[in-house]
Amino acid sequence: MINRQMYELGSHRSTIREIFEYGNQRAAIVGRENVLDFSLGNPNVPAPDEVRQAILAEAAGDPVAIHGYTSAPGAPDVRRTLADSLNRRFGTDYTGDSLYLTAGAAAALMCAFRALACEGDEFVVFAPFFPEYKMFIESGAGAKCVLVPPSIEDFQIDFDAFAQRVSEHTKAVVINSPNNPSGAVYSEQTIRRLAAFLREKENEYGHPIYLISDEPYREIVYDNVTIPFVPNYYDDTIVCYSYSKSLSLPGERIGYVLVPPKAADSADLYAAVCGAGRALGYVCAPSLFQRVAARCADLTSDIAVYRTNRDLLYSGLTEMGYTCVKPEGAFYLFPRTLEADDRAFCERAKKYDLLLVPGSDFGAPGHMRISYCVKTETVEKALPLFKKLAEEYKIR
Amino acid sequence: MINRQMYELGSHRSTIREIFEYGNQRAAIVGRENVLDFSLGNPNVPAPDEVRQAILAEAAGDPVAIHGYTSAPGAPDVRRTLADSLNRRFGTDYTGDSLYLTAGAAAALMCAFRALACEGDEFVVFAPFFPEYKMFIESGAGAKCVLVPPSIEDFQIDFDAFAQRVSEHTKAVVINSPNNPSGAVYSEQTIRRLAAFLREKENEYGHPIYLISDEPYREIVYDNVTIPFVPNYYDDTIVCYSYSKSLSLPGERIGYVLVPPKAADSADLYAAVCGAGRALGYVCAPSLFQRVAARCADLTSDIAVYRTNRDLLYSGLTEMGYTCVKPEGAFYLFPRTLEADDRAFCERAKKYDLLLVPGSDFGAPGHMRISYCVKTETVEKALPLFKKLAEEYKIR
Repeated sequence: MINRQMYELGSHRSTIREIFEYGNQRAAIVGRENVLDFSLGNPNVPAPDEVRQAILAEAAGDPVAIHGYTSAPGAPDVRRTLADSLNRRFGTDYTGDSLYLTAGAAAALMCAFRALACEGDEFVVFAPFFPEYKMFIESGAGAKCVLVPPSIEDFQIDFDAFAQRVSEHTKAVVINSPNNPSGAVYSEQTIRRLAAFLREKENEYGHPIYLISDEPYREIVYDNVTIPFVPNYYDDTIVCYSYSKSLSLPGERIGYVLVPPKAADSADLYAAVCGAGRALGYVCAPSLFQRVAARCADLTSDIAVYRTNRDLLYSGLTEMGYTCVKPEGAFYLFPRTLEADDRAFCERAKKYDLLLVPGSDFGAPGHMRISYCVKTETVEKALPLFKKLAEEYKIR
Repeated sequence: MINRQMYELGSHRSTIREIFEYGNQRAAIVGRENVLDFSLGNPNVPAPDEVRQAILAEAAGDPVAIHGYTSAPGAPDVRRTLADSLNRRFGTDYTGDSLYLTAGAAAALMCAFRALACEGDEFVVFAPFFPEYKMFIESGAGAKCVLVPPSIEDFQIDFDAFAQRVSEHTKAVVINSPNNPSGAVYSEQTIRRLAAFLREKENEYGHPIYLISDEPYREIVYDNVTIPFVPNYYDDTIVCYSYSKSLSLPGERIGYVLVPPKAADSADLYAAVCGAGRALGYVCAPSLFQRVAARCADLTSDIAVYRTNRDLLYSGLTEMGYTCVKPEGAFYLFPRTLEADDRAFCERAKKYDLLLVPGSDFGAPGHMRISYCVKTETVEKALPLFKKLAEEYKIR
């Protein structure tokens, strides 16, 4: 009597959720400080103090104006401010009319997928990938999700494998750089090659192929790495953004879809994004945090702890013999597991109260995701245990 | 190439939106104060000061905790507090596990519709109705929306017309009391009769028929009217609630779905609601306002202005010869238009800069919606103009 698909989605816990619950059980036995939980992607550095100041400044204003409905795509002045911020940083010339504010990146992605998806359409996703993509594309938008296997040497794109999976049914290609779960950043060379390939395929099939760039980690990068701003390389790009990670506001649900004017059928596509938001029950993005985002558009939380953790983990693990692509962004490390069966490896790690997520969950078996948005102390406690775990495999 | 249905939804302005834009154009010519805009359902009384205090109190806390992800159904302590508030007021014994917090009532409705809708299902809606219902049911959840014509004498339920539209395909029935656009409140007698009728039909068809009670106006009532709490009359009720109207927070998007334990297949249904939220891209309800709602759960904005406006409009218009069911709740008056063609009537009203929404938009031709969430001054200016308008019809 109830929709089976929705029931399944709501009743089957994700692996990450299972690990989280397991962590709680262990904490009750061995103490919270002894559970080394690397499973959650919840920012642990605080929002910049300017966020608090912005909340206080807004709360001092007229409640009817602050808490009232905004127009469906977002308050015009907020959209203009966010567009200006992009223009300053990326040399673009957007107006607020290219932005549709959303309740975070998940909402942005769902609006983009539903705006585009027609009968028979395929959306191409590169492994390793955020597992909700497949669910959004299939259960959310009713389209087909086509997976490209990972390029495990560098977590860039395996273009041969990709070319085999692009067809006349390809409506869009989804990228996520800096990447969850690998922490890899697509190089400018990768973006250029991807753009050239997609233009060629657009010509071949005679219709646009959109590039959906999901970039909640755009501002979380290390070592002065530059993130290529994708719409500057490929016209038919749609950007899905969230302030969840850059401003440490994941619970507040604030982000946007950017439909650049140069994208094919830009005006129609923007209208369809608005229509999708309406059909999904999004009335407007949360109004107070629209204004907070505008006041803090150029800021990023202090990510020094993430950098410290990354360096400790990367050098520590590689010295012990773990193999890992050095992450340049986000707050994840994605080493190979020491046995091919990543689920078995992660189970074994539990013996040391090390909580890791198997790579299979992200379409990349033989890996483990280590979320290092944790206290540095947790990393320091964990390293000797990762070593003991490695020794078990040497002895066998 | 783009999803046509989403494009249509996003590019066709609603009548209310058209009127709003027209009002802006007129304001530029005759001055904002001379445009008597009764078209928008945006609360114009401020949120209680406790809302501001709650925001300040929360903002003084740990940003990582305040702005972090909550569990998908909402923070456990918030859900418990909201359940306790219901229990105190309605004699129920819910726990937080029956509540799923959402980004407002629109999200709550979409989660309920998608959780329930299976191939071939029908959802019954009573006119006059909030026009997005049809869109949510059809474009959002892919089900069929069956409309019951209005009972224009009292805006209760025309049970004969209703009975003709219930069938074995009926999955759920949607009610909205206090009602947008009529302001009518379903009497206890109506709710009892509806419950008895649905129980009879459940027995006849051998499956549950859910009653989806959309009640964002539950706290906006006048003259000591008591709103029957629907789950106390019919077990298979799902409540969709929003703090948009009661706390004047429409832009913040905070509300809930209540799946009472007594509802048929309650646990499965709750799981499906969670699954629907996931498939629609709702990660969690906005975290700061989850906490604000908990702190202010028992409060309502000061609705004295609404009452004053209602009394002025109702007595003024009926004296002039307009026919109107006296509204007992919400902030709408829904009189009959003075000609059968309500669109023509509302066009004629524009001559006096009176902006009204035709009843046809709500499935009740021959009526006009007057949103009286405006300054009392606006009402006072409008009354003589309503009189002039009425005189035009007497002369003809």
